[in-house]
Amino acid sequence: MKPIILTGDRPTGPLHIGHYVGSLKNRFDFQDTYKQYLLIADSQAMTDNFERPELVHENVTQVALDYLAVGLDPKKSTFFIQSQIPELCEMMFYFMNLVTVARVQRNPTIKEEIKQKSLEESLPVGFFCYPISQAADILAFDADVVPVGEDQNPMIEQTNEIARKFNLVYKVKCFKDVKSIVGKIGRLPGTDGKAKMSKSLGNAIMLGDTADQIKKKVNAMFTDPNHLRIEDPGSVEGNVVFMFLDYFDPDKAGLEELKAHYRRGGLGDGQIKKRLIEIMDALIAPMRERRLQYAVDLGYVKQVLTDGTQEARQVAAKKMDQMKHAMKLIY
Amino acid sequence: MKPIILTGDRPTGPLHIGHYVGSLKNRFDFQDTYKQYLLIADSQAMTDNFERPELVHENVTQVALDYLAVGLDPKKSTFFIQSQIPELCEMMFYFMNLVTVARVQRNPTIKEEIKQKSLEESLPVGFFCYPISQAADILAFDADVVPVGEDQNPMIEQTNEIARKFNLVYKVKCFKDVKSIVGKIGRLPGTDGKAKMSKSLGNAIMLGDTADQIKKKVNAMFTDPNHLRIEDPGSVEGNVVFMFLDYFDPDKAGLEELKAHYRRGGLGDGQIKKRLIEIMDALIAPMRERRLQYAVDLGYVKQVLTDGTQEARQVAAKKMDQMKHAMKLIY
Repeated sequence: MKPIILTGDRPTGPLHIGHYVGSLKNRFDFQDTYKQYLLIADSQAMTDNFERPELVHENVTQVALDYLAVGLDPKKSTFFIQSQIPELCEMMFYFMNLVTVARVQRNPTIKEEIKQKSLEESLPVGFFCYPISQAADILAFDADVVPVGEDQNPMIEQTNEIARKFNLVYKVKCFKDVKSIVGKIGRLPGTDGKAKMSKSLGNAIMLGDTADQIKKKVNAMFTDPNHLRIEDPGSVEGNVVFMFLDYFDPDKAGLEELKAHYRRGGLGDGQIKKRLIEIMDALIAPMRERRLQYAVDLGYVKQVLTDGTQEARQVAAKKMDQMKHAMKLIY
Repeated sequence: MKPIILTGDRPTGPLHIGHYVGSLKNRFDFQDTYKQYLLIADSQAMTDNFERPELVHENVTQVALDYLAVGLDPKKSTFFIQSQIPELCEMMFYFMNLVTVARVQRNPTIKEEIKQKSLEESLPVGFFCYPISQAADILAFDADVVPVGEDQNPMIEQTNEIARKFNLVYKVKCFKDVKSIVGKIGRLPGTDGKAKMSKSLGNAIMLGDTADQIKKKVNAMFTDPNHLRIEDPGSVEGNVVFMFLDYFDPDKAGLEELKAHYRRGGLGDGQIKKRLIEIMDALIAPMRERRLQYAVDLGYVKQVLTDGTQEARQVAAKKMDQMKHAMKLIY
């Protein structure tokens, strides 16, 4: 039996090339060797977007389209919508008894996110409890591994604490430990050089971008502000175009030559941008085409989500039933 | 249409005469004029008894037997088991987004219970969130009124806040305000004179007690410690036997004569206890008989719970569906 991966996204916007680098590419690589569950976490997105239900609703389809666009195959991976699996809420309810308020308050990820979102005084209980909700998502599917960012390891620890406590209190082997895989590749900066790429900041290359959009975004990229004339020596470090080329240029030797040329002068920004535009378009073109193809066949996308959700629900329901037996909540 | 009442008990032990006075008698009186939902709150009981699943499991049947014993009629009231209605967990999940952590921390009932149970440091998230869980129970059934103790009014306020916020945020009229009914009759003391009657303190007259058990418990009741000889004047105030007679003696004029006699001396404790024994046995005998009758027909009790739970689940599922439409979590 293949090992199980649980992974997914909050549907708060269509995905971009940063998501591709950070997770989607890995998922594509994983889909043959793992049984992969792809969670479109609409209920979790509601914990900090409860006042924007339209945003969450619309982006469920967008995220599914992005999954299909990068070549994720619904025959290999299970696409599913969190809110359509009520068992996840039920599991969370009982897990909430196994975690103290003090323990959640000490969770570094939660601490940091609360700070970032300035939620201290107005922190909703739902957002405060989302590590417990995530534990339910992971444990419902008996996941062996969960790919996470470096800052999310405390979430996995929290999940394993809950799993062990449940097994201990109810004297069962209902759950096993889950391991994290920390992504090999770091974060891609925004096209403006800011640390985070995000659609709402307008500094993201989207998976459905047209050739023109890509061209425009790359041409607007920050390079070296001191590289004023072509003949001037330029800096490669902190130069967004080279940061992107480092990720995406398959010709590493050619890239090193280019960097040397840029450093000693005589290579214009226009030329390095032209190269990046070609590479980005070659990468995105097939995604864009697949995305367009599926976007005119939303009935198919809906069916993928319905089938995947039905399959995932059966798995979660079976686990919930085990839990209820363990807790003697069967009459 | 009859107004709707939601009420119920945490199944942590069989019920006693204190429950009868505090709530069961009212429920019996209400069952013709209200549509009454009787919640056996096993999942809520788990929030502070998660390590004692057997206790909760066993007492679901005991509580149902007690309901039948006092004459609650499953044809008139809906008996149901909380854990078998997953929609209640689901509702709670979304309500958690509408309440801040700070707001729950300010809930006086929660504050007091945390203090009483010395849970400060080890407070489970589930227990902390139980006011939100209660709001789900109430709002799922469109309850018009909820009978509460005086100390529980903050729970009703919390429920109405959630109801109004949901309506406001999602621009719907999904929920209406609920009102509390504060019980007319106060608390019956334990047979030892302590403020709280409780099976675990051994100071409770149970609804299934035999004539012998009642006799023994009444005979052990505290009276007036200074009333040493029959001819001594005795005190009626703080005398547990008279506190019980005040509640249960239907002959108010006769009771006043008895009190006067006791006060001036010449009336032994044995005689007032004999009177109370007769009254308590007359009250309890039909309950005990009904309880015994149903206890040998547990198949019937199970059927009552199954039918009631099925009916209640349909109501809750309909409300959850309305909520999901409002939150656009329908695909």
